[in-house]
Amino acid sequence: MNDKVYRSELTPLDFLERAASIFPRKTAVIHGRRRYTYSELLERSHRLTNGLRSAGLGEHDRVAFLAPNIPAMLEAHYGVPAAGCVLVAINTRLSSQEIGYILEHSGSKKLFVDRELVPLLEPLDTTRLDVIEIADTGSLEDDPYERFLQSASPEPPPRVLADEEESISMNYTSGTTGRPKGVVYSHRGAYLNALGEVLATTLTADSVYLWTLPMFHCNGWCFTWAVTAVGGTHVCLRHIDADSVWDLFELEGITHYNGAPTVQIMLVNSDRARRLDREVTVTIAGAPPSPTLLATLRELNFKPVHVYGLTETYGPTTVTEWHEEWEGLSLDEQATWMATQGQGYVTSDLVRVVDEEGKDIARDGETMGEVVMRGNIVMKEYHDDPEATTEAFRHGWFHSGDLAVWHPDGYVELRDRAKDIIISGGENISTIEVEQAVARHPAVLECAVIAIPHEKWGERPKAFVTLKPGAAATQEEIIEHCRDDMAHFKCPDAVEFGDLPKTSTGKVQKYVLREREWAGRDRRVN
Amino acid sequence: MNDKVYRSELTPLDFLERAASIFPRKTAVIHGRRRYTYSELLERSHRLTNGLRSAGLGEHDRVAFLAPNIPAMLEAHYGVPAAGCVLVAINTRLSSQEIGYILEHSGSKKLFVDRELVPLLEPLDTTRLDVIEIADTGSLEDDPYERFLQSASPEPPPRVLADEEESISMNYTSGTTGRPKGVVYSHRGAYLNALGEVLATTLTADSVYLWTLPMFHCNGWCFTWAVTAVGGTHVCLRHIDADSVWDLFELEGITHYNGAPTVQIMLVNSDRARRLDREVTVTIAGAPPSPTLLATLRELNFKPVHVYGLTETYGPTTVTEWHEEWEGLSLDEQATWMATQGQGYVTSDLVRVVDEEGKDIARDGETMGEVVMRGNIVMKEYHDDPEATTEAFRHGWFHSGDLAVWHPDGYVELRDRAKDIIISGGENISTIEVEQAVARHPAVLECAVIAIPHEKWGERPKAFVTLKPGAAATQEEIIEHCRDDMAHFKCPDAVEFGDLPKTSTGKVQKYVLREREWAGRDRRVN
Repeated sequence: MNDKVYRSELTPLDFLERAASIFPRKTAVIHGRRRYTYSELLERSHRLTNGLRSAGLGEHDRVAFLAPNIPAMLEAHYGVPAAGCVLVAINTRLSSQEIGYILEHSGSKKLFVDRELVPLLEPLDTTRLDVIEIADTGSLEDDPYERFLQSASPEPPPRVLADEEESISMNYTSGTTGRPKGVVYSHRGAYLNALGEVLATTLTADSVYLWTLPMFHCNGWCFTWAVTAVGGTHVCLRHIDADSVWDLFELEGITHYNGAPTVQIMLVNSDRARRLDREVTVTIAGAPPSPTLLATLRELNFKPVHVYGLTETYGPTTVTEWHEEWEGLSLDEQATWMATQGQGYVTSDLVRVVDEEGKDIARDGETMGEVVMRGNIVMKEYHDDPEATTEAFRHGWFHSGDLAVWHPDGYVELRDRAKDIIISGGENISTIEVEQAVARHPAVLECAVIAIPHEKWGERPKAFVTLKPGAAATQEEIIEHCRDDMAHFKCPDAVEFGDLPKTSTGKVQKYVLREREWAGRDRRVN
Repeated sequence: MNDKVYRSELTPLDFLERAASIFPRKTAVIHGRRRYTYSELLERSHRLTNGLRSAGLGEHDRVAFLAPNIPAMLEAHYGVPAAGCVLVAINTRLSSQEIGYILEHSGSKKLFVDRELVPLLEPLDTTRLDVIEIADTGSLEDDPYERFLQSASPEPPPRVLADEEESISMNYTSGTTGRPKGVVYSHRGAYLNALGEVLATTLTADSVYLWTLPMFHCNGWCFTWAVTAVGGTHVCLRHIDADSVWDLFELEGITHYNGAPTVQIMLVNSDRARRLDREVTVTIAGAPPSPTLLATLRELNFKPVHVYGLTETYGPTTVTEWHEEWEGLSLDEQATWMATQGQGYVTSDLVRVVDEEGKDIARDGETMGEVVMRGNIVMKEYHDDPEATTEAFRHGWFHSGDLAVWHPDGYVELRDRAKDIIISGGENISTIEVEQAVARHPAVLECAVIAIPHEKWGERPKAFVTLKPGAAATQEEIIEHCRDDMAHFKCPDAVEFGDLPKTSTGKVQKYVLREREWAGRDRRVN
């Protein structure tokens, strides 16, 4: 700890301490019939911290959570880092194999797992891990997690954070190499991005935030901390379905929620969809929302905020701020502007669009380049992968892999992706990982996987396959084979057989395949 | 500059760069008929920076401004620190002598002075200083400041900030010693407090902020930077009078303004006062607002936000957040709670109330202690005064000199002042300074000055004087004598002649005088 009177290390953990001091009796967490005040949330966080410390965990130790959006998962975002540990929140949609890889690669020493997800661990050797089950009943009788909290001291634990640049969490992303990479966040970055989210989405003490967005996605885009910063209310949600969400809008007076366009499409197309009495702010990222979707949301009294970012930027880091000049445009033109990615948050640096040498491209709305970021809202590193970190940080900027044009007024607009990534329903899928799975089928000679546009999911993977001479396989066989060793959402929707287009040197020309599948569209991301 | 991809030095100067990039054509500044867009404000700031650099000024050089709330004063908050210089914004209500002392003590090398205030410089030797006059016409023809800008390059100057803890400004305060002290702010603290102000007062891109609060007060409580952070509009104001303010509410669609209760009282008692069509957020500090004032503000559709702080805490650093539990209370009880000082901003540490050994007092709403602060929203130091800095920072916390009770829910409530400070209309007056001025009158043997409650100004100084044997003087003569060498607002309103109450060791018992003057009141601050 520094000894300067005029310096505190920036950490989002302070948000909870403040909220519990200012709003001790206010409802911090709602989960069905369960309610926790801010004072209770702080005490539960203290117990989690003290429990971890008593179990011998301390500075820089990794603690994994595999759970949906339940109170325990929110508590993890305070209790784990307050012990000096690094939170590893694992995507619950992954396969057992992928979860095993992340537990191993992150070096997690302890795992908290939701009872519903325990079957995912069955194929894994978890003897090395200390596993604690979360029954999510909130009751001592039948919930091992509650007993873990109960056995620990409720007293404020000693502060252990010595430097705001220390790691707070590690979020695994499907990188371009096919193996998940552990994106490391710092306390400073998490603090500043949480405030950036507050400002971009106008969260206040009156906000009631519905957890439609998974907390395992970039720590819930840092909203796990942002909602607490303003003393708002977190409304948990174990499973997302349109009915529950529409019920909660009314029942709990929801003011904010977040999600990829997929989630929005599900909601506005539900039987229950109706114009809301109060405006609800919906923050959209993961893919540009269509003009139709934006118009529908407005009709139903949602206020759409479009943001953009990556796991490597703590989730969203740019926002498409409204321009007065757009008032005079047609709804379609307005929506087209709103679907651009805008510019950096108040707490982010401005993003740039660069050529291959890292130089600014022309701000003409036509030239294409790669979006690059720098500053407090960029990850520290890929855990235990200095090579990938160096590559991503070339020219001193983080390379997003997203290709965009740069408008004269500074706004960026994504057009294509340099990285082999498919974004489907807000989840990243590495085309290389899918290709490797397809190629493991004995009949496959070679293959190429690209994203194709999809109305509901934005993008879905499609495989182009050349079979071995004399071998045979059907589309169904290839897909079934993939489902055996990969999360189901990553498996191709379609398989097309035939020769692959190649350069004279034998390199597969994916752009030829993409051009065919995306014909008639302005951009190659959806 | 650091070379980490994941770290930018925090500085409020980035707010302007971002606003100019995102809202280039939006109105940033309104001053009568003059309008500057964000793109123009940035260019004018660049010119100011380049002009200063061309004039040989650079890192850590002090540049003083003596001006009302005009565009040049706002530009100073960006252009001066961007040159690596430290801004010294001087209180225009001070006497020539006091201004001379500040120019000398701060070591200012250059002074920009508003034409109206040039007479204040006449008694001073300014040969050492490079003085540039601001005619505030915005026209090259007759405005030396405009010519200074015009002669400089409009190009973005090189970034010179190497460390966010470097100094950005120096704000002189009437300390307890009678001599103004230069309170030094850092880029990091200014950035974080500006965001704290945004959150406490809910500033957004739609905000139109009226500059009733002097920018020379704690850099306008950091609103010089906060309004720009969200891309809001600054509405300048050369002189405050109720008519202009009521005109501007309507004409420019004001959404926010700040001020001491004195300013509010002037506004709500004006002939023009009427219920506003839209809610206007009014942020009040400098003295606790009375229940009557709070009720009147609400009737007129003002949303009062009560904040508290000192020059040493970048202006306001605590806010009285509304509690749901208060809904059931009477208006009077609500107002009583709203008049407490609340707790730290999101970006501040929580404040504590301590005894003389620096230990927490009981949180019982009765025991009195001193309010102390720590963290990013505490000044770096008193310029060139290590002794006063050490004293203020004893036990590792900044000592406010304000005495308060601590409520069980964490809120603090000021009751008295340990420091010999009178706060009159939001301006600090050192009782010691007034005593020294009174004592310089040849007929005075000794004297004591205390604050007495005043309906309009909150507090005013009153002098208790013992005359030399055989000497004579009237109240009017004493006051007139004070006006000769001190700013007029600091001079006593009343003088009472007689013996002073003393301890057995001969120390003046000011509390005896205070008890008499404040009889029948709950607290000794107003």
